[in-house]
This record gives sequence, structure tokens and C-alpha cells, in this order.
Amino acid sequence: MPETTAGLLAQIADTGRDAVRGGWSRPVFSSAERELLEWSQEQCTRRELDVDVDGNGVLWAWWNPAGLPLVDAVVTGSHLDSVPGGGAFDGPLGVVSALRAVDLLRQRQVAPTRPLAVAVFPEEEGSRFGIACLGSRLLTGALPADRALGLRDPDGNTLADAARRAGLDPHRMGRDDAALARIGAFVELHVEQGRGLVDLAAPVAVASSIIGHGRWRMTVHGRGDHAGTTLLADRRDPVVVAAQVVLVVRSVAAEHPGTRATVGRFQPVPGGTNVIASRVDLWLDVRHPEDAVTAAVVEEIGRRAGAAAAGEGCTVEIHEESLSPTVDFDPALRDRVRATVPGAPVLATGAGHDAGILAEHVPTAMLFVRNPTGVSHSPEEHVEDDDAERGSVALADVLGALLT
Amino acid sequence: MPETTAGLLAQIADTGRDAVRGGWSRPVFSSAERELLEWSQEQCTRRELDVDVDGNGVLWAWWNPAGLPLVDAVVTGSHLDSVPGGGAFDGPLGVVSALRAVDLLRQRQVAPTRPLAVAVFPEEEGSRFGIACLGSRLLTGALPADRALGLRDPDGNTLADAARRAGLDPHRMGRDDAALARIGAFVELHVEQGRGLVDLAAPVAVASSIIGHGRWRMTVHGRGDHAGTTLLADRRDPVVVAAQVVLVVRSVAAEHPGTRATVGRFQPVPGGTNVIASRVDLWLDVRHPEDAVTAAVVEEIGRRAGAAAAGEGCTVEIHEESLSPTVDFDPALRDRVRATVPGAPVLATGAGHDAGILAEHVPTAMLFVRNPTGVSHSPEEHVEDDDAERGSVALADVLGALLT
Repeated sequence: MPETTAGLLAQIADTGRDAVRGGWSRPVFSSAERELLEWSQEQCTRRELDVDVDGNGVLWAWWNPAGLPLVDAVVTGSHLDSVPGGGAFDGPLGVVSALRAVDLLRQRQVAPTRPLAVAVFPEEEGSRFGIACLGSRLLTGALPADRALGLRDPDGNTLADAARRAGLDPHRMGRDDAALARIGAFVELHVEQGRGLVDLAAPVAVASSIIGHGRWRMTVHGRGDHAGTTLLADRRDPVVVAAQVVLVVRSVAAEHPGTRATVGRFQPVPGGTNVIASRVDLWLDVRHPEDAVTAAVVEEIGRRAGAAAAGEGCTVEIHEESLSPTVDFDPALRDRVRATVPGAPVLATGAGHDAGILAEHVPTAMLFVRNPTGVSHSPEEHVEDDDAERGSVALADVLGALLT
Repeated sequence: MPETTAGLLAQIADTGRDAVRGGWSRPVFSSAERELLEWSQEQCTRRELDVDVDGNGVLWAWWNPAGLPLVDAVVTGSHLDSVPGGGAFDGPLGVVSALRAVDLLRQRQVAPTRPLAVAVFPEEEGSRFGIACLGSRLLTGALPADRALGLRDPDGNTLADAARRAGLDPHRMGRDDAALARIGAFVELHVEQGRGLVDLAAPVAVASSIIGHGRWRMTVHGRGDHAGTTLLADRRDPVVVAAQVVLVVRSVAAEHPGTRATVGRFQPVPGGTNVIASRVDLWLDVRHPEDAVTAAVVEEIGRRAGAAAAGEGCTVEIHEESLSPTVDFDPALRDRVRATVPGAPVLATGAGHDAGILAEHVPTAMLFVRNPTGVSHSPEEHVEDDDAERGSVALADVLGALLT
């Protein structure tokens, strides 16, 4: 008797719990993320799927009972890594639902005419190495391997070193045309990261697009000094400038409706209570459906940040870490998915996904499952058991239609 | 042939260098701070001083050639711990100058009529456990041991655990009336942390007072959420509030002349680039010669911070971590020191020192040595070799006058 989606989720509910931040922390290559990956491999093996981890660390588990050539495959899956102190469902729900969908397809005695693969992509959140969808960017060549391998985590470890310690060969990382050529269609199921389905009182939605987004690292340079002996007039305090930058970000975003602009990471250096910082590193996340607006917002933020810095005798640098244009999912596949999940609303999302990276190369679709809190990247993220099962059933319906 | 002050400083110039932040990082009980402490013990032993580390981790090295009872002693010394990424002289200069002064007193064949001790106090900066002058506060009872032992460093280690790992017995920590009763006078030499001596073109100053200061931890509570999917209107972003608090701190300080108010540590939680934080912890350092002004400044900051938080649907808490009133050094001892160092200007300081804690119990004085950059708590802090030697000579002059 195969388990329900909720039953599978219960098996991994405690993996990666974060006692300090609350919620779950599963950075890529951490023990928590590796534990989930091993659990997923074991689940795939139990289901007699052929498991393979490719050079980029992407897990592929093949269901191909007819022994067909591995071309034009239907691929479904998501990721297992998380933001620090995030929710339980962001990523794992898509992997678990893929496993459950395979069980449902077998129960229904579907005889696939195309191969099916469950896929798991590493570092979707970018919370360790700073670039979101790192696995799919490597695979598609959107991010060159030589640039990726030198990325560093907050402790100074390179991706190359961390991958090596996780048993991967850094020399095998990079664009993988053979892997891409196998995919005929990619379908990712994901917990919704907003209130769209709550407002529409529906359990499952079909994605229309992923709005464009980017990340910029800003550095404010000031002059480190003693907090007790330096008079206000003598200060070049980068924390004061960075605080102004945070408010500039909010103001400029408000002036451009539809913009989501956030500073979630803000690090004074050296970071002592009785020390005027010498530098602040802060990160800017900006998203808008129109790529030109995103560019204009970031330019305006940079301009006003420069003025704020000059007022304190500081300087500011802004460095683009990643930038993804708005992605409209394949209309033909989307219509087919909509026909298979009747009544499901069609929603755009402000969150990035590996599906958005793959969409530039293969027909891609997404399903979203209702999140009653509407809150995401937080322990408050939630999915009801019934909705999780409805999501898996919808995914099985979509995969069944594509496979036969 | 004993070494000069600069020669002694050169021996420890590389201990605790911080390749990431720049400068030196010697948190209490770190390997760098322990290495300096061992070096200091060895230097004391070479000078045939009787070395003892008390229950609070304070090093005492006695020069008592006449075998006098250990009462009414003249004590000199400073600290070896540093802020993160600080300078080389803040703390170690006082310890090294004390060693050099002992050499000079012996060269002069001083026959002391009172015992002399070189003392080293742990965690003067408070940069690991959040409370400055922790060693002298424990010794004097200004901080009860039960409160101190539960203090945690940024990694969650308690002071009790860290002290135990450093070979101390936490049960022996706390008020030590016997240690205090031995001290007849305390003289601390310290690098100047401002531009006073530079402006006056003098190498050494005598301290008049330490202006009152305190530290407060502020916590802004918001709602963690996804940076891409949460519209501006739906946000309760504590980073936006904390940024306003930083600017409030600057404004309120400017409205109360003579105030130094600083935010040098600012930590969004969880701290992800694509995550609206759920909480920000930030620390406030406020100093003013008049204690009533410090209180008024903090109250006004709290009031405006609360209003800023309310505007974003957040809340803010403010928690006093430490508060020290303005300390005027013993006038009789100060006049004696001034008579011994003719021409030395008299300066107040905005920096806290163990001397300020001890001053509530025993006659205490301080000497400051010129810092040509005027910058402190930064790698730019500096002392010229000649000035370092002048400081040791002045200290030897003062100690010699007090001992005979």
C-alpha cells in the first residue's frame, strides 16, 4: 500500500530543523540536504527507478518500463535545499509529489510511451553560493562552470571544494547538452509562495510565467573607528549610509508599481557593538514583470545610494550577482496542462525556479499547491495534507496525459 | 639588555591577525588571545615576577622583592582581547608598557616600599559576550557571576562553557573582595582612541574621566516572507524598520551635542538574500559626559523606534546590556600622576576601560599614548615606536613615584 503525499512528507519532517533560526535550514551539500537526497534516492530505488547523479549533482531517477531510448522524456521534480530558516515544503513538496505521482501512475496501470524521470536540482535557492538555480544554470550553460566553481559560501569555501567534499568531480561540472537533449517536457510542482490560491479558494494552480528577478551585492565603504571616541562630525559611518540605502530601496520600489525589492542580508564589517564599521555588505533582490522596469529600479537605487554615500564621506559599489528575465512558460504545454487540471486558475509567480531556467531550452510547465498562510521562505509556510494529495493527483494527471 | 617597548611589541605583532576583516581579532579565550596571555606569563616569569591567574581569569604578576604583605599594592596593566578586526595596540600596549616599566624600575634600582603587580583583565572589549570590562566587573561584583555565566557568544556558547574550555573553573568566578583589597592604586596605560594628543602635539596624556556609556540590544520583530512573491503593501519587514532606527540614532544623537551614538552590529534573521527577514537584532552604543543625557537619548531613540516599527506592522524591544556612569578619576592620584609627568595634557575619554570599573573601589589613574591616526577599533590605529617608549618611561616614572 503506497503512502500518501502527507505520509511521505512526514518521513522527512524533522530533517534540517533549525533550532536557532526556527524552521528548516538545508543549504546545498549540508548534512540535512544530503540526508534528504539519500532518502529520495532510496525512495526511487524502492520504486525500481534507475537512479543516476550527473556531473552537476542533479539526481535523475528513470521510470522506463518499456526500455525506450532516453529521448523526449517527461521530467518532473524540484529541489531539496532551502533558505536559512525556511519552510518544510519549498522544494521537497515537488520531489515527494513526483514520487507519489509515480505510485499513482502505476496504480492506474499507465503504460508510458515516453520515458519519465524524477529530477532533483541542487542549490535552487542560491542561499549558500549566492546564485539561485545553480544546478539548472550549470546544466544549461546559463552559468559557465569556471565562474561557478569559484563562487564562495559565507565561510569562504568555493563551490569546487564543497562539491568535491560531497563526492562530485568539479571537472565534470558544466553545460550538459546530452542531459538537456533527453528532456521532452519538464513539469515542476511547487508550494505557492503567495496568497493567490487562498484568495481564489482553489487547491492547485497552473503557472503562466515567472517574473524577472536579479540579485545585486552592494558594498558601502566608510572608515572604521571607535564608537566612543569619534565625534559625529568626524564619522564616515557606512551603517548610516546602508540604512539610507534600505529606505531608498523601499521608496524606489514604491514608485514603480509591481516591483518587489528587498534587502534581507546586511552585514557590517567588522560588526562590533563598540565599533564604527569600516564597510557594510548588503544584498538587493529586485523583481518586476517588465525587465526594463527592473533595470530602471536598480539604476535609480544605485544613483540615490551614491548620493547618500557622498553625504557621509563614504562610497558605494553595486555588483550584479545574477539576473533572469521574465519567463513565459510554453503556451502549448500550458494549455495541455490546463486541460488536464480543469478549473485550476492560472497564476504568475514572483519566485524563481529551475523550471524558469529550463524553460529557455525545453517546453516547461509548473503547478502550484495552495499555501494557507501565503507566507514563504519562513517556518509559517504550510500545506494541508489534503491539498498535498490533490497536488500529487494533479501532477499524476498531467504526467499521465503527457506519457500516453 | 632589556628590550624597548617597540621590541616587545614586535614579538606579538602577528598574533591574531585577521585575514578576512583586516587588522587583528583576539576575542577572549580564542587561540590568539590565549597565545598573548601565555607570552605575557612567560615575560613575567623571565622577569621573576610571581604569576597567578585568579578565579575570574585575571592574570596577576607580582614584583615584591622585599617580600611585603600583599596590601596597598600598586597595580598596572590592561587587556589582551580585541574587537573584531581591531588595531594592534588597544590593550597589548598597556601590558607591554607595564613589562617595560618593570625593567626600567629595576634599571633605576628602585627599591619598592609597596608591592607592584602587572595585571591582565579578560574580555575588556565585550566583543565576544556582549559586556565590556567583564573581568573587572566580575572581580568587583559589578556584574553578578550567575548573570555572567549565562552570557552567550554569537555561536551560542555560554561564558561558563568557554571559561571551562580555557581551563577556568566557573564556580570560582565572581566578586573577589580579597583581590580587590590588595590594590592600593591602579594605573592603566592605553593607546589614545581619539585625536586629542595629535591636536596638542604631545606624546602622553593623563586621564581626567571616562564618559558614561551603555549598550542596548534592540530587536525588531516583523514577519518572514518570500522576497519575490510578497507585495510591498503586504510586508512587515523588520530590515526597513531597523534601517529607520539607525537613522533615528544618528538624529537623536545630533540633537544632543556631545553624544556619541553608534549602531555597529546589525543582524537580520534568517539573513537570506531572497528572504524578507522575520527579525533584526541590532546593538546601540551611546555615550555622553552627563548620564542624564545618555538616559534621555536612549529613551527618545526607543520612542521613535517604536513609532517606526508601528508604521510597518512590526514591534521593537530594547534591552539594556550594560550601563556605566561617567567616572571621574581620583583627583589626588591624578594630581600626583600629573606632577610626575610634567607637561602632559589632561584628557577625558569616550572609551570604556577596566580602570573605570576599578575606579569605583580604589584610587585609579590612566595614561594615554598618542595615536597619530586618531582612529581606534580599526587596523588604522597606530603608535610610533618613540611614543611607545615615552609612554613606558612615563608609566615607570608614575609607578616609581608611587612605590617609593
